[in-house]
This record gives sequence, structure tokens and C-alpha cells, in this order.
Amino acid sequence: MATYIFGHTTPDLDSIVGALSLSYLKNQLGEDTIPVRQGNITPETAFILEKFGYEAPELKTEFSGEDVYLVDFSDIAQSPKDIKEANILGIVDHHKLGDLTTAAPLECWIRPVGCSNTIIKQMYDYHGVEIPKEIAGMMMCAILSDTVIFKSPTCTKEDTKACKELAQIAEIKDYKALGMEMFIVKSDVLSATPRELVTRDFKDFNMGGNTIGVGQLEVVDLSVFDAMKADLHEDMKKLKIEGERHSVLLLLTDIMKVGSQLLVISDESEKIENAFNVELEEGEVWLEGVMSRKKQIIPFLEKQF
Amino acid sequence: MATYIFGHTTPDLDSIVGALSLSYLKNQLGEDTIPVRQGNITPETAFILEKFGYEAPELKTEFSGEDVYLVDFSDIAQSPKDIKEANILGIVDHHKLGDLTTAAPLECWIRPVGCSNTIIKQMYDYHGVEIPKEIAGMMMCAILSDTVIFKSPTCTKEDTKACKELAQIAEIKDYKALGMEMFIVKSDVLSATPRELVTRDFKDFNMGGNTIGVGQLEVVDLSVFDAMKADLHEDMKKLKIEGERHSVLLLLTDIMKVGSQLLVISDESEKIENAFNVELEEGEVWLEGVMSRKKQIIPFLEKQF
Repeated sequence: MATYIFGHTTPDLDSIVGALSLSYLKNQLGEDTIPVRQGNITPETAFILEKFGYEAPELKTEFSGEDVYLVDFSDIAQSPKDIKEANILGIVDHHKLGDLTTAAPLECWIRPVGCSNTIIKQMYDYHGVEIPKEIAGMMMCAILSDTVIFKSPTCTKEDTKACKELAQIAEIKDYKALGMEMFIVKSDVLSATPRELVTRDFKDFNMGGNTIGVGQLEVVDLSVFDAMKADLHEDMKKLKIEGERHSVLLLLTDIMKVGSQLLVISDESEKIENAFNVELEEGEVWLEGVMSRKKQIIPFLEKQF
Repeated sequence: MATYIFGHTTPDLDSIVGALSLSYLKNQLGEDTIPVRQGNITPETAFILEKFGYEAPELKTEFSGEDVYLVDFSDIAQSPKDIKEANILGIVDHHKLGDLTTAAPLECWIRPVGCSNTIIKQMYDYHGVEIPKEIAGMMMCAILSDTVIFKSPTCTKEDTKACKELAQIAEIKDYKALGMEMFIVKSDVLSATPRELVTRDFKDFNMGGNTIGVGQLEVVDLSVFDAMKADLHEDMKKLKIEGERHSVLLLLTDIMKVGSQLLVISDESEKIENAFNVELEEGEVWLEGVMSRKKQIIPFLEKQF
């Protein structure tokens, strides 16, 4: 029986590439694994897959009775609905420890670094397995994406080291230029619906029994959102009701200005204001220097619940 | 501010040695850490500490506001009471993934092997740090203890490999003889009270909202318990009431016969019977081949709740 490897429900580049790169490693180590995805891929992921000649992993959302490895998450809210009926063999992640539990011992590679693929690179090194050129290229791009080309406060020396080594394997000299190209693809928001944008990189968190959904869009220039702010707010309201969420937050991150415009729809806006010591104006506020949902948003929200 | 490193509330040899060995490694890597313990040490641990010339780590049970590393557990039920107010920097463990969560990213080395010190040995190798002779000796003994001298079904190739390499560093040729000596110390139960015996290696688990306490005593010959069975049952009843537990189980493991006598006090004995497909007689049953609480008891109990 094959083991399925997948990332969180709304997959970003790191979780799609992570499923592919971890699956290749595990197969080289003699396991029988299949990378899959839980949801649609983003334009950024499509761009990278095409660039390196890979197909997207198949869509699979039910895992009852299956052996699985998880990449890039350990929260029930980001898991398939039947995760409790699956047998979790391991987790590779770089986020906080979530609320998933297991009945049996497992293999966790969880590190406080900027990207899951940095950890997977370390796993390749640990096991002495060579990384194919194209997989190295995709892993490198996942690191550039998650660390916002090393600008995010989540970026560690381990990430830059892994990224540079992967660039060498992939034979890509100007990896920062490729990173920028990737973020320009990400910045093309005009062809997407508000729902597509709000949910493109959207994660639910359980905080003291409340569901808090936090989305993030990273662009080269925030002004691309000027014409669609009202529509985004409208859609966040709908998303809040549909998911019986306590709050829906959207971070519009400007990677050049290094900061994020935070959009908020919440039952208790004051909790959000307290978390960041700010005042919202018409459900918005600029957070200077904030690039990382994981490090600069979630821990502060957690304290309010 | 120093970071505290400790094992579960009722510390066994693995969690005491794990705190010492992980602390030495972290300090060599430039961190400032202090090994501590949450409870009394066992006769087995005292024997090993004395043999290798180490003092027991200091007792410390409050960690509010402190940075901590956890060794050998990830369950709230086995944590200090104020663990939610501590800042968990990392976890080294070889059990199922428990219900601890964190607000921020962390470093988890969790592996499905027989002993936490096997993982810590791998961490030393990973970082290229030399293990002092005496620490290697204690780590070797922790592996021999947790794997019941390689007889437990939890024992993996990684454990035997780590153990043999540690024996070499410690310059101990006949490590199995030392392991046996250790289990003979463990088998000396006559000088202990029933409460000391029931709680010597006792862990609480949260299963569907119920507290299930499971103790284990490993001896060279089960007949040492013959005269005290009734007293053990009596004390388990008290322990059940004191801790508002759903069940208290005690495994009396015979390491030569390779099996365990299971003692049960429970609100729903039929759940225990169903878990192992057995019938209890006067609250007892022999489980042939059962050596491991982690692998042969907990996962089967979990399924009943």
C-alpha cells in the first residue's frame, strides 16, 4: 500500500513542491509514496511546475485508512476532513506545533526555519540522496517564495544555505532574478476573482475554540489592489459566514515596501487591534515590517484567545 | 536566560539521561541550557547516575515564562502544570504525537525508534559534536533500558546501531551484561511501597476526554510480585480516585518470558478487554509478547475512546 504525501488544504508552492520532493526522497529510500494535493494550485505554483517540466500532483482529499506523510502543517483545521482516520507516519513542517495527534509513534522533522523545503533539503543531505536538477530548482523556488527572497523575518541562515546549494544543483546562477519573476506572476491579481484572491493562500486556525481564517497575498506593488479593496472586504464577509469563522484576516504584503496592509472582518475587532497594538480604520491597517503570517501574525493572535 | 530541558513528570532513565545528554549537546552548540527533572528518580536511574559519576539534575516543576526543551514526551498530561505559559523551543521524542501545541515555530526531532537517546545520538552525529565517555555510557544504558536489551518490539536498527556506537565511546565491551545488571536493580521491588511501584514509571494519557493512567514495571522474573499483587490492586484503586481517572492500568513485564501481566482498575473494563481482545479474571490478564506500553498498549486503547 502506497503512502500519500501532501500539504495543507489550500496548497501553496512550498506544500506542492514539498510533496514532490519528499516523495522522491522517500522512494529513493525504498518506501512506496505518492505525492498528492488537497486543493487547486496557485498561478505561482503553475508557473514553477511548468518551468521545471513537472505535472501537478493529483488531487486527493480522502485518506481514511491510508498511510500518510504531512508536509508544511500540523493543524487539524488545515487537514483533510478524515485525517483522524488516517495513519500519520510523519510530519515535515516549519510552523508552530498544531493540534494534530497520533495514536502511534511517528517521524517529525519540524524546524524553526523559513520553508519546509529547507528541511527536506537537510533530509536529502542526512540520507546522502542526490537531488535531481529539476526538483532542486523547484525546492529552491519554494524557499525563495516562503522567505520572500530572504526578506522575511522567518528566513534563517539554514534557508539561505539550502537555497544556494539547491541553485547550484539546479544550475541557476541568478536565483534572485527568478524569485522576482515568480513574485511578478504572484502580483498578477487582475485576472482573478475576489474569492480566488482571498483564498489563494488561506489557512484556518483553531484559537481557543474559534476558527480564525488568515489569508495572505504577496505582491511586488500593493497598488494593484487599489481598485478591488471593497470587493475583497465583501468576499471576506461571505467567507466568514460560510465557515462560521470568528474572524477573517487578509494580509496584502508589499514585498518591496516590506510591510502588509491588514484587512479585517471580525466578531471582536478589538482582539485584532490588541494583538498588534493598532487601531483599525474601516477594517484596515498598515503593519510596517510585517511579512510573515507565521511569525508576526499567528503568535500575537493566539495570545488573545 | 537559560533554557530548561526536562522529561515527563514521572521521569524514567531515558528522560533523565535525555535531559543531561541534550543539554550537553545544546551547550556545545552555543546555547545556554540547564537539565532539570520534574519528579523523583527511580532506583534504576540512581544506579546508572552513580555508575557514571553524575548527579541527578535538580528538581524543577514550574516553567511559566521560561524557554524549554522537552525530552521523551509531547502530552499535556505528562507536562508541568504551567506548560502552556512556557515557551517550547523544541521536542525530542519517540512516542506518538501528543496534544501539546505551541504558538510559535519550534524544533522537533520525533522518530519512531525505541529510545529518545537514540535520537539524541543522531543529533550529536548530525552536528558533529563529540560525546563525553560518561554521557555516552548513560545514553547507552537508556537505550538498553527502553528497548529491554533489544527485546522490545519498539527496538529498531537505529537503536542497536546507536547503542553499539555509544558502547564503543564509553569503552564498555559487554553492554548486554550491564543491561542485565540494570534490570536486576529494577527487579528489586521488595524494598518499595505499593505506591512507589505503581507510580515508578507511570504516565497519564488523555483519551477522548478521559484520563487513563498506565504504569509499567519491568523485571527479570515476574514471581517477585506474587506476594504483593493484592496491595498493588488496592493502591491502583486509590490512584484512580485521587486522579479522577477513568482507568488505571499496570503492566508487570517479565523480560525473560517476554510478556506482561496486565492489572486493570477501570470504570469500563470492557473497553480494556476489547482493546486487547481478552477477558480479565479478577482484574488481570497475561498478554503474551507484550513488552511495550507505547507500541502494544496505547494505540489499542486509543481506538476504544
